[in-house]
Amino acid sequence: MLEKINKPEDIRKLSLAQLKVLAEDVRNRIIEVTAKNGGHLAPSLGAVDIAIALLRVFNPKRDRVVWDVGHQSYAWKILTERNDRFDTLRQFGGISGFNNIFESEYDAFGVGHSSTSISAGLGINVADEMLGRKSRTIAVIGDGALTGGMALEAINHCGHLQKNLIVILNDNAMSISKNVGALQSYMTNILVSKTYNTLKERVWDLSHTLPTSIRRKFITGAQKLEESLINILVPNIIFEDLGFKYVGPIDGHDLPRLVHIFNKARHNIVGPVLIHVVTQKGKGCDFAENNARVFHGVGPYEEKTGASLSTKSKSYSNVFGDKLCKLASENSNVAAITAAMTDGTGLTDFAKQYPDRFFDVGIAEQHAVTFAGGLAVRGIKPFVAIYSTFLQRAIDQVIHDIALQKLPVVFCLDRAGLVGDDGATHHGVFDLSFLRLIPNLQILAPCCAEEMEAMMDYAISYNDGPIAIRYPRGSARYCKSEHPVIKMGKWEVLQEGSNIAIIGTGKGVLDGEEVAKLFTENENSTPWLINARFVKPLDTGLLNDLATRVKHIVTIEDNALTGGFGEAVSTFMGGTGVTVHSFGIPDEFVTHGKVEQLKDMLGIMPRQIFDKIKTFL
Amino acid sequence: MLEKINKPEDIRKLSLAQLKVLAEDVRNRIIEVTAKNGGHLAPSLGAVDIAIALLRVFNPKRDRVVWDVGHQSYAWKILTERNDRFDTLRQFGGISGFNNIFESEYDAFGVGHSSTSISAGLGINVADEMLGRKSRTIAVIGDGALTGGMALEAINHCGHLQKNLIVILNDNAMSISKNVGALQSYMTNILVSKTYNTLKERVWDLSHTLPTSIRRKFITGAQKLEESLINILVPNIIFEDLGFKYVGPIDGHDLPRLVHIFNKARHNIVGPVLIHVVTQKGKGCDFAENNARVFHGVGPYEEKTGASLSTKSKSYSNVFGDKLCKLASENSNVAAITAAMTDGTGLTDFAKQYPDRFFDVGIAEQHAVTFAGGLAVRGIKPFVAIYSTFLQRAIDQVIHDIALQKLPVVFCLDRAGLVGDDGATHHGVFDLSFLRLIPNLQILAPCCAEEMEAMMDYAISYNDGPIAIRYPRGSARYCKSEHPVIKMGKWEVLQEGSNIAIIGTGKGVLDGEEVAKLFTENENSTPWLINARFVKPLDTGLLNDLATRVKHIVTIEDNALTGGFGEAVSTFMGGTGVTVHSFGIPDEFVTHGKVEQLKDMLGIMPRQIFDKIKTFL
Repeated sequence: MLEKINKPEDIRKLSLAQLKVLAEDVRNRIIEVTAKNGGHLAPSLGAVDIAIALLRVFNPKRDRVVWDVGHQSYAWKILTERNDRFDTLRQFGGISGFNNIFESEYDAFGVGHSSTSISAGLGINVADEMLGRKSRTIAVIGDGALTGGMALEAINHCGHLQKNLIVILNDNAMSISKNVGALQSYMTNILVSKTYNTLKERVWDLSHTLPTSIRRKFITGAQKLEESLINILVPNIIFEDLGFKYVGPIDGHDLPRLVHIFNKARHNIVGPVLIHVVTQKGKGCDFAENNARVFHGVGPYEEKTGASLSTKSKSYSNVFGDKLCKLASENSNVAAITAAMTDGTGLTDFAKQYPDRFFDVGIAEQHAVTFAGGLAVRGIKPFVAIYSTFLQRAIDQVIHDIALQKLPVVFCLDRAGLVGDDGATHHGVFDLSFLRLIPNLQILAPCCAEEMEAMMDYAISYNDGPIAIRYPRGSARYCKSEHPVIKMGKWEVLQEGSNIAIIGTGKGVLDGEEVAKLFTENENSTPWLINARFVKPLDTGLLNDLATRVKHIVTIEDNALTGGFGEAVSTFMGGTGVTVHSFGIPDEFVTHGKVEQLKDMLGIMPRQIFDKIKTFL
Repeated sequence: MLEKINKPEDIRKLSLAQLKVLAEDVRNRIIEVTAKNGGHLAPSLGAVDIAIALLRVFNPKRDRVVWDVGHQSYAWKILTERNDRFDTLRQFGGISGFNNIFESEYDAFGVGHSSTSISAGLGINVADEMLGRKSRTIAVIGDGALTGGMALEAINHCGHLQKNLIVILNDNAMSISKNVGALQSYMTNILVSKTYNTLKERVWDLSHTLPTSIRRKFITGAQKLEESLINILVPNIIFEDLGFKYVGPIDGHDLPRLVHIFNKARHNIVGPVLIHVVTQKGKGCDFAENNARVFHGVGPYEEKTGASLSTKSKSYSNVFGDKLCKLASENSNVAAITAAMTDGTGLTDFAKQYPDRFFDVGIAEQHAVTFAGGLAVRGIKPFVAIYSTFLQRAIDQVIHDIALQKLPVVFCLDRAGLVGDDGATHHGVFDLSFLRLIPNLQILAPCCAEEMEAMMDYAISYNDGPIAIRYPRGSARYCKSEHPVIKMGKWEVLQEGSNIAIIGTGKGVLDGEEVAKLFTENENSTPWLINARFVKPLDTGLLNDLATRVKHIVTIEDNALTGGFGEAVSTFMGGTGVTVHSFGIPDEFVTHGKVEQLKDMLGIMPRQIFDKIKTFL
């Protein structure tokens, strides 16, 4: 059926029965492509029917659909003129794994981070009303994303404004990890409400006893009855208290029902409405259904079985998680905090071994940080593991609640630097810049697993203020025969040399090693090679020493140049006569692709760095 | 009565009648001191009885009270061994206008920004439980602060954990500006619930007909009844849905009742409880009660009448507000957004003149930014006015929702630079650093009112991406006979010179003028003087030109040196042989005091800058 859909309008020509076939085709297409490219399989399978029903009911050029996070929108992409390119998903030059306004006119708002859709949708709705456009705006948000503070801020504002925003709550009772929070258990209560379910079943059972001729009429009547009854029978619908009309819960894989309800929302409802749709993550794919957690986001896999095609090696996340378990076994005051990323940050074992000291706060980075502050002010040693890009959500909390009070919270920033396939919204290339401006905060970056562990030892021994450790996505490097000893603000000289010093930080050390090798092999000169373990404070003693020994310093970092490590070194060296040449991410947003492809595009592969250095020597 | 209170324990020795007298004394003390020093009068008057009741019931050394924002905690300060120093409130070297863990052991967690108390309180509660301490934790949060996303994140987590946290909702139905949002109208509904109020009145009326001997007993019984009834009669208590026990609403100025309820919460309640206390802002002071909005935070005033003692001059906020009204009159697509700071950001007139294009989203900076993104993506031109320090709450949204999509949102950052009396939590000294790292974003800083207006003209004419304009607290300077024309990345040469160039940005231009004058008067040499209108992009043409003309560049900015304007210039000048000397806020948190006092302490007054420059020439 998918081959018949060239434009979204074609979906309106299909019968309801054909829609079901289309859904199956779309699911197969998603499985086929993600098996090759990797991607967000389970969430996208869960939202196929929602996408089809939306395209059936609404006009996707006029009406605006904002998909929260966007990792569930593959069906939407396939059905809005991107099927032909869908096999380039998440590949360099190909289509993005998230919605992107530059990619398609059907993508109403760029997404990637969680919980933005209601804010953006409300803005769109208000703008269209101001400009006299007759369009509807729909925000599709997951139950996990709903726990993010900004989604709740938006609900509060929307309930107040009483605009005709349609919010579809895509409730799979499991955001990225298992969902947590009072809101979740509240919604589960709605779902298991006996009165409601009993009523619903009776009505539907009854309908089957009727002759076909009047059955349809009865069903329509019953649905109306159901929708009004539920508001009486299911007590305390929070969303209604907040000014939304609540409809649901609805089976998110029952296409006719979705179409019916969306139609109702489109034509009849005035003011904001929340349609509570219950979906299954991984729907229609056995292995993804059975293990939706693992198949949330995956690398390439065997299409029939789901068996991973990636070679498994120990990631920095695992190094972090294992080490934290060890620290926790030695120190009962160690606690771990994650914001809905238990697996992603390597804390699965910790969560099992130390459930009383493990806190998954949901998608709520702001709360995660200040909650850690509360723990720390009373003597607990919290390790807050958050992806670099998501810590952008809680910078004020790091400044105001932690650093200002010199609280010994340890921030472990996973996925720092270029992350690859997830692209512009997910690269962790700003953390050195936004952390460096914060007084009282130390910033460390390991260049290998042993150093990572040593830095965690250092962090646990230091209690006079906060520490941030940032490390990249992917396999950890093992390179040291023994654990280094970390001293505040001290760098490691890997190689002494003359005239030029190459200073790398984190992954930049690896590139620095390559560049140094190219010098030795091609230029018969040996540069200094230095591992800047600390991005803050700088090793000012070593830098002052270098000022008397070299004419050029090259810095290499996996971070934006603006405000980053290179600027810090450059500023410090001002007036010494040493010229600092910095390599890192230029002042632009970087697309998706393999990390090496992106680095090549940006001109920061070791060979490219070497060539550039030669031109200014 | 206040003179009898040397330690908080003394409060327990007083009768309930004496507590009332104490409350009056504390109010008078607050009025006396804020009349001289300025401060947050109305909120602190509203929370006097809560503070007294807390100190009466809880042990403030063992138990931990977290005051959200902290601007309502003057009574707490006065009664926890700080009355003798209370007349130094907000003064250089004196006590802070907010809670501060370094100031007093009675301050459980440092505050200043909104909506952090439940997160911090929950962390404290969990830590104390882990460490076996028998303490209670209380978070006191206003109804305005409750609309901040992180407070909602914290409620979600707390409801899930079911810890014994006591949350006191200090509901004055009016946060800083008039409160907005669905949550607020929901709470108002509780308050006006007829059933509840009728019941309450009847019970209390009845009690007065009884003989004194049994009256007390009856009241106790009635209160119990009331508390259980309310949960039946007032429908849909959101907080109960989220796992909290809800108690209230309670008259927040009825001390005996507060003491009774707090005692109950302390001893009987298991799991999180939310006590809904209704207070009046400005309570006990006629002019503050009648105009709580104006007396939220004030400068020195006449103690009897409240008449302001400050000389009024036009602030940058007013310049912004007036200009935006003008722009709105010319362009129907101009909209204004504030996060609960209509007055503070100068938008009062705009709100009145253009109610359909004015959006106060409540204390919800994250939503404010992305909501603006939604407006902009559909063709509206939103101006988002947020204090510099509060935009720290929404950096991710500026990056991810605005800059990444090149949406033409204009950010107007009020209170940039050192703000003075409000101190470390409120100085807007990080914005140049955290904005500069964001690709696609232009950053402008005016040095006078005319330039501010010209920059807004520039912003409205530019639609290819976002723009941030940052300007200081206080009186606007008028210095130009005609409006300058702003060109992207072009600075203004105020004076040509030789050998040395002084480049100021924003308020730094004024200091630069002073420094230049000192040179001319004392050194017989004329430095270049340049107004860096753009912090990003830099005027690289001018800088390259200067590189051939001067040996030294001095930058002056009202921002952290780390990651700031000076670093940008220093990095750009690397390798040119020009030495860059940057003046700004060093890498530390700066206390409160008059701005001049703080600058003197930091060594960045013009005379100090001049003296330092001389040493390196």
